[in-house]
Order: sequence, then structure tokens, then C-alpha cells
Amino acid sequence: MANVCLTLQYVGTRYHGWQVQPNGITVQETLQDAIERVTGIRSAVTGCSRTDAGVHARRFYCTTAQPQRLSDEKFVQALNAVLPEDIAVLCSRAVSDEFHPRYSAVAKRYVYRIWNGKVRNPFEQGLSLHLRSPLDETRMNEVAQLFVSTHDFSAFCSAGSTVQDKVRTICRSEVKREGNVILYTVEADGFLYNMVRILVGTILDVTAGRLTFESVRRALETGDRSCAGTTASACGLYLDEVWYREEGES
Amino acid sequence: MANVCLTLQYVGTRYHGWQVQPNGITVQETLQDAIERVTGIRSAVTGCSRTDAGVHARRFYCTTAQPQRLSDEKFVQALNAVLPEDIAVLCSRAVSDEFHPRYSAVAKRYVYRIWNGKVRNPFEQGLSLHLRSPLDETRMNEVAQLFVSTHDFSAFCSAGSTVQDKVRTICRSEVKREGNVILYTVEADGFLYNMVRILVGTILDVTAGRLTFESVRRALETGDRSCAGTTASACGLYLDEVWYREEGES
Repeated sequence: MANVCLTLQYVGTRYHGWQVQPNGITVQETLQDAIERVTGIRSAVTGCSRTDAGVHARRFYCTTAQPQRLSDEKFVQALNAVLPEDIAVLCSRAVSDEFHPRYSAVAKRYVYRIWNGKVRNPFEQGLSLHLRSPLDETRMNEVAQLFVSTHDFSAFCSAGSTVQDKVRTICRSEVKREGNVILYTVEADGFLYNMVRILVGTILDVTAGRLTFESVRRALETGDRSCAGTTASACGLYLDEVWYREEGES
Repeated sequence: MANVCLTLQYVGTRYHGWQVQPNGITVQETLQDAIERVTGIRSAVTGCSRTDAGVHARRFYCTTAQPQRLSDEKFVQALNAVLPEDIAVLCSRAVSDEFHPRYSAVAKRYVYRIWNGKVRNPFEQGLSLHLRSPLDETRMNEVAQLFVSTHDFSAFCSAGSTVQDKVRTICRSEVKREGNVILYTVEADGFLYNMVRILVGTILDVTAGRLTFESVRRALETGDRSCAGTTASACGLYLDEVWYREEGES
């Protein structure tokens, strides 16, 4: 059995997130079913992130054991033939047994998508957060800049997280407008539970005057969750890319 | 009762086309239901085109009678509140009783969308035709140029059409690539039944070597359907815009 890393792309709308759970269909379970149909063996799949229900992925990495009978290309084709239309395997490659899709990651990029048209856009359903009132993307970008640097992001993490060390380094945090679409892009060495959705909620709350810049600075200094903003809806969130250290690097 | 023209946008995937029919849910019926819920009156709706099952619209115009109690803005808001997520009313405006969304149209633009990536794209599901093999968009555009001009398009019309005069003028017909997406844009003073889908099928057949340029020229000269190409799948087709003569013009 070889350890292979699969690159996935999926529309999260129909799924209760990545991770197998009793109360709903998940991407992990759907993929494990597909692998079982193709290989005849039930193999566990390990993902790079636990995306929430409704969150999408343009690039999602996971590992699984693959009996070495199929070439990478054939394995990809066979999986896509049995997977539902809203999940695609883009590629498969052999990795060492030391490679872990979550712990070997050195950075991730998320994108949050907002449809800022007066009327909803049917082509954006489930794919963006719809906000009717015109948003000031320059102001939004000013708030986004506050997050760039190394901080304790405890204030930007939902309760229920068991992670001890909440210090993360955000190296990119910016808001751009493309017509009626507003995109927030954030890159960091790691993210806490619901962190991007709280960053977005905070940007929106400050821009709308419900929260002050000062409160955001306090949130970053004190780790007080109540100084940060609300948690933006899952449907606008995309895991966009994950970067790994080269194998052999330490 | 005022005659109002509604501008719609819809994802056609779930619908058996525009026009009311016994065997499936249609956009027309869904809209008529919404108007009845908002106004309390069952009003007929007249559309600008009979889009097929699975065809989408970025701009679709239709007329209906509106009791004059609601402003245009309130009418739009009320309709969007009761319509399903995959249909949106963009605006409503009063038009004269002479205005007809189909017969007053002077030109229409359709766009056909192809996803030309090796692997399917989950974000394109139902929204484009997926063709795996790399397509030569320059060659496709050369075929598309053959259609520009005034022709009898009988060869590019499905059986079952009752229209007598099949002469139409195409003023724009072009193929462009944007990354893995190929877009065919066509503008004409009118379109026959399945015409755009047959134009696309012809472009694809010639590009793949299944049909010759000469055969396409013969199709345009003789009206022989068998000289033209196949009918491309509905899911890549978008009614993109409809133009009307100014009211008062003749």
C-alpha cells in the first residue's frame, strides 16, 4: 500500500463539512465510499482541515492508502467516475509515510466571497454571502490590515477549540472588489476554529459602524472574544490553497 | 392594471424550461405562482423566449399585469421574497400595452459556456458543457465567423419548428478563451428553435474534424440540416441579453 495525497475540489453546500459525523453526509465519508468502490478496500482518509458545513474548497489535500495497482491518472479517473458532481479529485501523487496533510502544511490561504448586489444573484446561491447595502471596500481593507502580523488570535476563535497555542502569523489580509463581488483573501501559517469567519465578521462590523478599530486592536491585544466581531456565514468561505514544506525539508 | 416588464435572472438546472407544461416545474409557472402570492391575483406572464430545460438566463424579460398598488421597487422585493433562490427579479418597469417581450425584441445575445479542463469543475456543474480534450479556440473562432451575415438558417433549426421565415441576421459570432473556460457569444435579430445549440455543435464538430468547413457552407446555402453539426447540450447555454426598440419607435 502506498501513501497517496489527493487534491480535491468541492462545493460544500450539500455537506455537513469535511469530517465524518453521525448526523449528516460529509465530504470525507463520500470520498471514503468512493475509494472503497474503486479499490475494494475501506481506507481511512486524513484531511488537511476540518471545513465546516457549507464551506467550499478550491484546493483540499488529503491522504489515503492506495493499493499500488492503479496509476495516479487511472486512480483519479476512477474516483471521479464514482464521486458525485460536486466533488472532484484533481490529482493523486505518492507521498512518504511521514507526510501529513494537516501537520506538514506550512501555510494556508482562504478566500471569503461576498455578493454585494442590491438583488440576490441566482448564480451565487450557496457560493457567497449576500449583503445588499453597498460596502466600502477601501474601509474594509483598512480593517483587514490590522490582522497582518503575528498575534494571539484567541479573540478570533470560537469556543470549543482545544488548541492551546493560539499565536498565528497572518502574512496577507486584503479586501478587493470585482464588480459586485467583494473578495477577502487571507494567508497564514495556520488558522484557529472559525477564525476566517470571525475575521470577516469583524471587518463587516467595523465597516458598518457596529464595532470600532480600537475594539479590534483590543481584541488582538487581550484575546477577548467579545471585542471582536460576529461569525460570518459559512457559505462564502473557500479553502483556496495549502502549502507544504518540500519532502526531506525539516 | 398596469402592464409591467420584469427583468429576470435564473439558473435553469432545476426547471423544464421557461414555458408552462404538464410534466415538470417551469420558470413561467414558478413566477406566476409568486405573482399570485404577492398580488392575490393569478396573472398570465408572457416571456421573451422559450428557453429549453436546463438553459440559464442572465437577462430574461417578461410582462405581466400588476395591480397598481405596489411601487416597482416593492414589487421586486416582494417577488424575490417568495421566489426560490435560483430565480431573481432584477427590476420591474411600466410598459405600454403595445410592448411585447418577444415581438418587440430587435436583437438577442446568447452565450455558450464550455469547461475545457481535464477534470470536471464542481463549481461549473450544470453551468457549462465539460469537454476534456484541449480545444483550439482559434479554429473554433474561424468556424464561428462563417455564421456572421444574413442567411437562411433552416439547417440550424430543430425539427418541430413552425416558423416559416428562417432568415436571420447574425451580427456577432465569436469564440474566446478565459483560462479553462471557452465562451461562444452570438448576437442576432432572432434565433430559431435550438439554433444556438446547433451552431455550437457545428463549431465543435468542425474543430474535431467530424465535419468540414465545406459542409457548413453547404448547410448555410441549402438549408440541409444533415450538413450542419449536432445539437450541443442545454446546460452550457445562457440567454445573456435582449434588446428592444424604444417605445414610440416604429
